[in-house]
Formats: sequence, C-alpha cells, structure tokens
Amino acid sequence: MASSTAGEVITCKAGVVWEAGQPISIQQIQVAPPQSKEVRIKITHTSLCQTDIYFWKGKDGGAWFPRILGHEGAGIVESVGSEVTELKAGDHVIPSYMAECKECELCDRGKNNMCEVFIFNYLSGVAYTDKKCRFSLNGKPIHHFFGLSTFSEYTVVHMSCVAKVNREAPLDKICLLGCGVPAGLGAAWNGGKVKPGDSVAIFGLGTIGLAVAEGARIAGASRVLGIDINPAKEETSKRFGVTEFLNPSDFDKPIQEVIREMTKGGVNSSYECVGRVELMLAALQCSHPAWGRTIILGLDEMDKKLSFNPLEILQGRKLKYVAFGGFKNSDIPKLVDKYMNNEFDLDKYITQRMAFSDINAAMEMLVAGKCLRCVLQMDEDCPN
Amino acid sequence: MASSTAGEVITCKAGVVWEAGQPISIQQIQVAPPQSKEVRIKITHTSLCQTDIYFWKGKDGGAWFPRILGHEGAGIVESVGSEVTELKAGDHVIPSYMAECKECELCDRGKNNMCEVFIFNYLSGVAYTDKKCRFSLNGKPIHHFFGLSTFSEYTVVHMSCVAKVNREAPLDKICLLGCGVPAGLGAAWNGGKVKPGDSVAIFGLGTIGLAVAEGARIAGASRVLGIDINPAKEETSKRFGVTEFLNPSDFDKPIQEVIREMTKGGVNSSYECVGRVELMLAALQCSHPAWGRTIILGLDEMDKKLSFNPLEILQGRKLKYVAFGGFKNSDIPKLVDKYMNNEFDLDKYITQRMAFSDINAAMEMLVAGKCLRCVLQMDEDCPN
Repeated sequence: MASSTAGEVITCKAGVVWEAGQPISIQQIQVAPPQSKEVRIKITHTSLCQTDIYFWKGKDGGAWFPRILGHEGAGIVESVGSEVTELKAGDHVIPSYMAECKECELCDRGKNNMCEVFIFNYLSGVAYTDKKCRFSLNGKPIHHFFGLSTFSEYTVVHMSCVAKVNREAPLDKICLLGCGVPAGLGAAWNGGKVKPGDSVAIFGLGTIGLAVAEGARIAGASRVLGIDINPAKEETSKRFGVTEFLNPSDFDKPIQEVIREMTKGGVNSSYECVGRVELMLAALQCSHPAWGRTIILGLDEMDKKLSFNPLEILQGRKLKYVAFGGFKNSDIPKLVDKYMNNEFDLDKYITQRMAFSDINAAMEMLVAGKCLRCVLQMDEDCPN
Repeated sequence: MASSTAGEVITCKAGVVWEAGQPISIQQIQVAPPQSKEVRIKITHTSLCQTDIYFWKGKDGGAWFPRILGHEGAGIVESVGSEVTELKAGDHVIPSYMAECKECELCDRGKNNMCEVFIFNYLSGVAYTDKKCRFSLNGKPIHHFFGLSTFSEYTVVHMSCVAKVNREAPLDKICLLGCGVPAGLGAAWNGGKVKPGDSVAIFGLGTIGLAVAEGARIAGASRVLGIDINPAKEETSKRFGVTEFLNPSDFDKPIQEVIREMTKGGVNSSYECVGRVELMLAALQCSHPAWGRTIILGLDEMDKKLSFNPLEILQGRKLKYVAFGGFKNSDIPKLVDKYMNNEFDLDKYITQRMAFSDINAAMEMLVAGKCLRCVLQMDEDCPN
C-alpha cells in the first residue's frame, strides 16, 4: 500500500508550544519525509498524559521550544525509510518512547527496559538520526518531544520507537497503551510482582494509580488500598480494583502508620504515582519492613530529595523506580492482544473525547485533575 | 556424650560490660541450664566484630547493661533442653543471630533471611523464651546480646540460633563464619549477584569489605575497585581480590565520578561497608544508572538520613540492605563445608590471636582499626 505522499513533505495540522506554559497553537506545519531508519506515521488519535503537562510547563529546563508535545498516540504508517524492513505503509502502530535499539547491552541482555541508545534521546528535542528536526514552520525548525510528538497529524519517529499492532484493535482506545495504562499495570506485574493474596497501597489515584490498582486486582491482590486527598476518587477507584479508599485528611496520624496497622506490619507492595518525595517516603514506610517492595512511578519534583534513615531498609525493604511498567516497545503488541482478549479494560479510563482542535480545553481539564484520559481525534475522517 | 554439668548452674569466666564504653570486666558469672528449647554451649573461640564495638559504646540506647557482648564464635554443645531434638551434647556449633523459627512467614516462604520471630529479639537483652537472663553474678541478672553473648565460656542460646557444623572444621577459624565474612561473601553472591566479567566497587576495606572483594573475585568479577582513605589498605586488599585501590584523598573530584569514568558509566554493583550515609550515596551514584545494584552492609550513623534525588534511580538502579550476606542459620554448615573444600580462605582475615583475658587489648585494636579479625581462645585447654 504505497502512499501518494511518500517522499514528499507533508503539510498538516500540529499543536505547537512556542513557549513554556503558553497555550498550544494549532498550526499548519511541514513534516519532512522519513530518513532511512525512520517511519512517518499518520496519527489518528492521541491522549494526554500528565507528562505532557510537565514538559509543557518547561519543567525540564525549557530548552526545546518551540516543540510539539504528545507521547500517547496511535496511527497508521504513511511511509518508511529505505532501511526499514519490519514496517510498511498501512501498518497500524503505537509510537513508543520505550525504544529498543536491539544492540546495546540493555536491549541485548534484557537487564531492564531502558535502551541505552535511545534513553538519552527522550529528553532531546531532535531526531535521533541526525539531531535535527523533521518538523518546521516556514523553514523554522520545531522540536520533537520524547522522540514521538503525537500532537501532530503526521509525525516522524525512529523505527526503534514503533510498535506494530493488531490492525483489528481500535486505535481510539489502544492509543492509551502508549504510556499511562501500561505504566500502571506493569508496575504491579513487573515491579511489585503482585501475587494472589497480596496487599498493596497506591498513592495517587490518577490514571496511573488506577492502572496499578487494576493490575494488582488482575494479579490476585486481596487488598488494594488507594490513597488520595480527593474524596471524589473513592467512587471512581472502586471500579478499578481499589478495595479500601483512604483519605489522609481523615486521620490524625501519618497515613503510613494507619496502613501498617491495617495490614499487620505493612503491605507487600506500595506505589507512588504522584511524584512527591513525601509520598515516596510514605510509600516506603507503609511497606512491610522485611519483604515490602516500593515502586516509584511519579515524576514531578525534580529538585527535591528523598530522605530516609537507612534503618528503614535494614530488614529488606526494596525501593525501585519502574518506568513504563518495565515494558519495552516489543511488549506493546502483546498488551494490545491482551486488551483484545478482554484481559483488561481501556474504556473506563477514557473520560472525555474531543476533536484535536480542542486540545487546550483538554490540557486545562488535565491540569485541573478533572479527567483521566481525554482522547483527541486528529481528523474528522480518521479511521477508528 | 552426657555432660557432668548438665542441669547444673555453671560458674565460668565471662566478659561483662557494666556501663557503655567501660572496659570489659572478666568475671566469674553463673550460667543457668538451658530451658526446654535452649542449648548451652561451651564457647571455645570468639572473634571480635565492629558491631560489638557499636553496642559496647551503647549506640543502641544503652538500655541493656550490664551485658555480655560477642556474636562471632564457635564452640561445643554442653547440654540441651528437653525439647531440643536436632542437637546434642558434643556437637560442634556456631551460634547464629540469623535465627530461623521455621514457622513465620519469612522462614516459611523464604522471602528473606530475617526471621520475623527472632529479629526483634536481637536487640533485646534477654532470652527469647521467657524474656529473662540466663547469666547472673551473685544473683544480679546480666543481659544477653544478639541472643548469643559469645564473650563467655558458656552461653545459653535458643535452639533456632545454633548451626551444627562439620566436627572436622577448626573451631578457631570457623568462628569467623558467625558474622563478618559471610556478610561480605553473601553481599557479593546474593545481594550484588556478581557475575563473571562484572565490575564492583567496595567502600571500606575492613573485614566485611575485604570479604565482599573475595566474594566478587570468586564469582568472577573482572574489576574489583576498593575504596578506602587508609593507604595501608592498598597492599592488604590486593590479597583479597581488589584489583584497583582508590583513595578518595588522591582525587580532586568526588570518587563516584572517578569510578563512573573508569567503568564506562558505572559499576555493576557497589557495596557500602562502613555505615556512613555519604558513602551510601557515593556507592549509589557510582553504580551503573540502568542496572547497578547498591548493597548497604554498614551500620553506624543510626541518626543520619540517606538523601538522594529520585532521578538517581529513574533508570533502574537498585538499592538494598543485605544483612549477614542474605544467609540464614541453615546456610552456615554449607559455608563451613565450602571452607573445608578450600572454596574460600579464612586464615588471612585472622590478624591476631589472643587469650580471652586480653579482650580489652583486642577491643582497643579493633577500635583503632589495627586489625581485621582477632580470635580469642576462651580457655587454655580449649580443643581446637
């Protein structure tokens, strides 16, 4: 299925952030053809994630403006570079920041899911291949984000950052498998290694925390404690597997003490899904002193330190950061298959659907914590 | 082999610490017969460990004076309580603080080596069974230490705290297998999971650090970096497997930076064997960001906190405390067999031998860092 646009510059709509914190500007931009190991993708749907907010605010230092955000999307391959053999125009794909070069020590030995080659490209605003931009507006380069930039009708990504998925799967739902939901499910499965009968505690019940809850439920946890200062989360979280909702404001002692008392010494695993160091500490301290595993998933206060007395871990507590649930790019097709096999749900994370043109309204809702996932349809005639 | 003293109170020499930091007083004390699940052991040899110094100084709060220190010893069972079936008078044993009740969740599931029942008894100064003392002097109770108190010609310990060992093994050497050497060997084997070709960094080259080095060497590490501010350690450490000695004073930048540069990003595993939080941080930061494992073995500054930016562990670094090398009581006989099979050496850790009566001189040498292990012979006619 050759595309009529292959090899040509495509002019299309994209959401450009010109300066940190400024509204996203929907503009016609130019998207260059893919280079030899790159893939140009027609994004059909993208959802928004708190990480977009983080970088929209320029919390990474703001060196890469103007840029096109977005890292949770799905689409269809428009064209591929000359050295791309495993993908072709028409393939349904999820662009993935958990790239695999398949050559570095991390990819080769499977030591963890952070490909050594690509990890340092996430935070750069340029294409991996030549350190330049494939996006431009009247000749002015526009930067990439996480190597993906899904807030654009067309994007160019490295072939190592693309997961080819079952073409029967609905793109307007599986776009969620680009970040938050796998991050939560995998934190429970691969990070906390939840087993039947386990107790778990989840700090922060946004999309990621709720996905941890669902992952824990699926893995057979008997007690899933959800902790959030927003009382409205109580009702929502029950649908995702939370068995007991705890609002720290309701107690006159630290929530970690409450949890330790409730669980005979501490939970099997705990999860910090907000990114605050005091919650990381609470998560650590509410885990069982001897066998508790604490998984950090949040990312917010880059400038603060986690502090604890080494005695806290003397008996064997484990502390670990788990990115993207420990999954790799090559795990995404398997997650899509599990979804298609009804092993987990995606619908209930999607609280809003909007047109791409309403992206600023969607960003505002996310900032205000008024939604889980809002899915944007890029184009009125996008296939689903 | 019934003992003529079975069932009787034994009067014997012991080293009593009456107040924190005061010289050890060798006195005749009374040792009660073992209760039903207890074992009375004639200690033949004991070595001294920095942990004895720590508690001698009363750093645990000093609630348990007078007490009899010592937790690295070996000896022969004198008599056993009525419910003890797996040990009998005449058995050669190593008393072990890494007890196994064999009933708690930790013992049962093998989740880690910290038996849930006995762990809380380590820091108490009384016998587990009835929370009383088996030692007394003219009727005044003298407290236990780590449930072992090997600085006594006779001690009474719970049957869960005794490892029966090969009776061919020399008690004056295998007494070292009660604490420091297994702590180091096991940190490399079970904690850092050293594999052939690995690079490791060890902070602090006392007995434990040197045992880590030897463990790493045995496991096939190709680079064993030893870090110590004492230049005299360079020569010593080479005999234990250290391939490169680094004195932080020789560099004008933090030693973790030096190590990262030397090892293409960081070592596979790092070990903190001193107990200082700034060295724990250095150990964490010199490990490979993606797959590095940092093992804490030291115990000193109970009141200080380890502080680091969560970004330090974002890519996958692991941090863990490993007590007694991850070994249990039941692993000690296997370690004795490995020693007898020449799989590792003990002689080179023994830098001094003294009579029990010289215990204060031995303590002073240890405080001054002038020895590795000093083995005390309890009695002139002790069998070896």
